[in-house]
Parts: sequence; structure tokens; C-alpha cells
Amino acid sequence: MTTPCIITVAITGSVPTKADNPAVPVTVSEQVESTHAAFEAGASLAHLHVRNDDGSTTSDPDRFARLIEGIRAHCPGMIVQVSTGGRSGTGEERGGMIPLKPDMASLSTGSCNFPTRVYENAPTFIDWLAERMKAHAVKPEIEIFDLAMLFKAVDMAGDGRIVAPLHVQFVMGVKNAVPVDRETFEFYVRTLRRLAPDATWTGAGIGRHQLTLHHWSLELGGHLRT
Amino acid sequence: MTTPCIITVAITGSVPTKADNPAVPVTVSEQVESTHAAFEAGASLAHLHVRNDDGSTTSDPDRFARLIEGIRAHCPGMIVQVSTGGRSGTGEERGGMIPLKPDMASLSTGSCNFPTRVYENAPTFIDWLAERMKAHAVKPEIEIFDLAMLFKAVDMAGDGRIVAPLHVQFVMGVKNAVPVDRETFEFYVRTLRRLAPDATWTGAGIGRHQLTLHHWSLELGGHLRT
Ligand SMILES: [Zn+2]
Ligand SMILES: [Zn+2]
Ligand SMILES: [Zn+2]
Ligand SMILES: [Zn+2]
Repeated sequence: MTTPCIITVAITGSVPTKADNPAVPVTVSEQVESTHAAFEAGASLAHLHVRNDDGSTTSDPDRFARLIEGIRAHCPGMIVQVSTGGRSGTGEERGGMIPLKPDMASLSTGSCNFPTRVYENAPTFIDWLAERMKAHAVKPEIEIFDLAMLFKAVDMAGDGRIVAPLHVQFVMGVKNAVPVDRETFEFYVRTLRRLAPDATWTGAGIGRHQLTLHHWSLELGGHLRT
Repeated sequence: MTTPCIITVAITGSVPTKADNPAVPVTVSEQVESTHAAFEAGASLAHLHVRNDDGSTTSDPDRFARLIEGIRAHCPGMIVQVSTGGRSGTGEERGGMIPLKPDMASLSTGSCNFPTRVYENAPTFIDWLAERMKAHAVKPEIEIFDLAMLFKAVDMAGDGRIVAPLHVQFVMGVKNAVPVDRETFEFYVRTLRRLAPDATWTGAGIGRHQLTLHHWSLELGGHLRT
């Protein structure tokens, strides 16, 4: 049995700025352009963050609206996934773009440490964000930075807070969260199969670890993200 | 090769109050008395929280000082371990009792969700608390509520922030953190053996899960906590 492979492009993360790399697309038109190039090259899913004009991160729904509209116009059929990650705001503004009805949105089902801070997703916030996604028929991509987030997502799918089947992404290599570790990756996949056999999944490595996780995901039967 | 078994007693947790259970020892003299009873019954390590007179949690160093003094007087040779857990304060007051030089203190090497909130241990706070323990020759018991905390502890032992060998406690069954799961428990033990072969460890289950973790720890060769 084979599952079609989904090639994802994350054109703009939440961390790099033009000062780090002048090629990072920051404005909405730059983002649409580089998403379109990836679409032409075969990417079928775009993972989206937005920035202010000065390059700082934001969750501004207007920027998201223009970006989604641009991608829908230029990349027909491409899956549009928005980030609700904590770097782009605190509290409920992180879910302000959900009513735009992107195809998918990221959802972290727990808290953990990041390089210099706590990545906070309190239990009530997770429930609020999941409910908003359910209300707007947005499919969550569960971002797993640590093991408890996997158990929590399975729980939420079990009682209907998240519409099953789960789609999860195992993220490795963020300092102070779970590192790039093959045994752990295999344990993640094994545990997901045990607890949510109908779930789909992918692996994501941060920075120089992208290719490693890409290869591990292919080997173990997951979907891809580039 | 066998390792002697350490029977631990946690006479007063951070959650239950006299309203839940009138038998919970709250005052310092009640705590000394019930620790002494456990000591007579064979417990060799006391894990300590302190309370205010109204039963609310605190990290007050004066209370800790009286409790430690009482136990040292009545239970000669017993290992005294203090809790630096987040329920009893926020920020640096959580380490205010370290200069009292208890034998051990708990140290959580990461953040995760607890039943109704984020259990926050920011990277800088962890370093601060570990350094304070090192300066006062207090042995940390690493409290592992999620997998990333294990990797972080190994890192810190590797660069000397924690004095090796590590002693860790795998805590299972706190809602929203890692639940009681046998496969995960075995993975924890296997991973610790792979990354820190000289480490010692124990398992702890919350509430009704105490006996389960107790038995799993015995089976897999860990130390005990009751
Ligand atoms: Zn694939
Ligand atoms: Zn992202
Ligand atoms: Zn033992
Ligand atoms: Zn405790």
C-alpha cells in the first residue's frame, strides 16, 4: 500500500530575517512569488508565516489574507497551511487568521522549552485554538516538539476536540526541545501507529537537519516537507 | 550486579490539602512525625514540600530549615531531598532553600503542561538552579515529565552544569504531561542507558499510579519511591 507523497515548502520561517539571508522572502508579493516557484517545481503544500515590513514576525490576519489570496490565484490546488506558532504573537491573536479558512493550520498540543524561552501553549489556549479550527473546518497539523504533545493530540482526537484522523509533524532539532535522534524518531512513529493507526505524519528538522528528517520520513513511510 | 534499593517517602505533596485528606501532614511537626514513622518502617529518603499554616504551598526557607533540622535530629542517616517544583512559587524563590544544603533537590530540566497551566522552567532558570545546587554541593534529582527534559539533563551533565552521574526520576500520570505508559517508560530507561550509562533512576506515578510505577521500576532495575 502506498500513500502519495506531499512535498511541502516553508518559504519563510519565523526566525531568519533579510539580515541573515537577503534571499528570505518577506513581503507578501515576494512570498507569493517564491511559493509559486516551489509550486512549479512540484511542491503541493505551502506552510506560511507572515512578517511586518521591518521583517519582524506577526500574526496579522490582513497579511495572511493577502498572502492566501495570492497563492490561491497563482498556485491552483496548492494546500495552504498557516502557522499559529508562538513566535508571531502571544495568546489569541495567534489564531486570528483561522476564520480566513486556510486548508490547514499548525497546532502545538503542549508546551516545551525553545532556545531562549518557554514555548507556551497552555491547556485552555490549545482547546480554544482547536475549537476555532474545528468551527472553520481547518485541518490541524499537530506540531510535536516533545512526546507529551503526541499523547495530548491522541486524547483530543479521541474525544472529538480534533477531527480524526490526526495529521502530525514530528519536529526535531530545536534547542531545548527534542533533538535530532533516530531512536526517538522511530519511537514517535511507532507510538503514533499504536495509538492512532489512522493518523498521517511527517518529520521536520530545523536548519541543517532538514535533509536528515526528510530522509528518515521517506524511509519510515511518512510524508515530506522541504 | 545489584544496586541497593532506596525506599523514598514523599510525606506531603504539593497538591492535596487537609480538605482533601485530613491525614496529610501539613505543619512542620506533623511532617517530622510522619517522616519518622516512614523512616522506622524502612524509608531512607524523604522528599519534602512545605506549606503555610493555611495549607497553601510555599518555598519558605525558614520552614524548610525547621523541617530539615527536625528530620536530621529524628531520622539519623536519612537522605533529605527538597522540592523546587513550580507549585510552590515562581522564579528564584523556588531555589531559596538550596543554601540549607539538603542532600538532594529536585530539578526539572524543561517545561511542559500540567493539568491547568504551563509548568514553566525557562532555560535561564534551569541553569541558575543547577548552578546553585552545584555551588552548595546539593545532588539534583532530575524530574522528567517529558522526553526533552532527559536530553537536556544529559547535555548539562556532559558540560558540567550538573555533576555526573545523573540521578533521574521519570514522572508519569500528570495530566497533559506524559501519561502512565509502559512502552514510554521502557523507552525512557533505554534512552537513559544509551546516553548516560552511569546514571541512576527511579519511576514515580501520580496518585493512583504510584504502585504501577513502583512495580515497573523494580522490574526494570530502578530505585523505588513510595
Ligand atoms: Zn511521502
Ligand atoms: Zn512554521
Ligand atoms: Zn531499587
Ligand atoms: Zn515533590
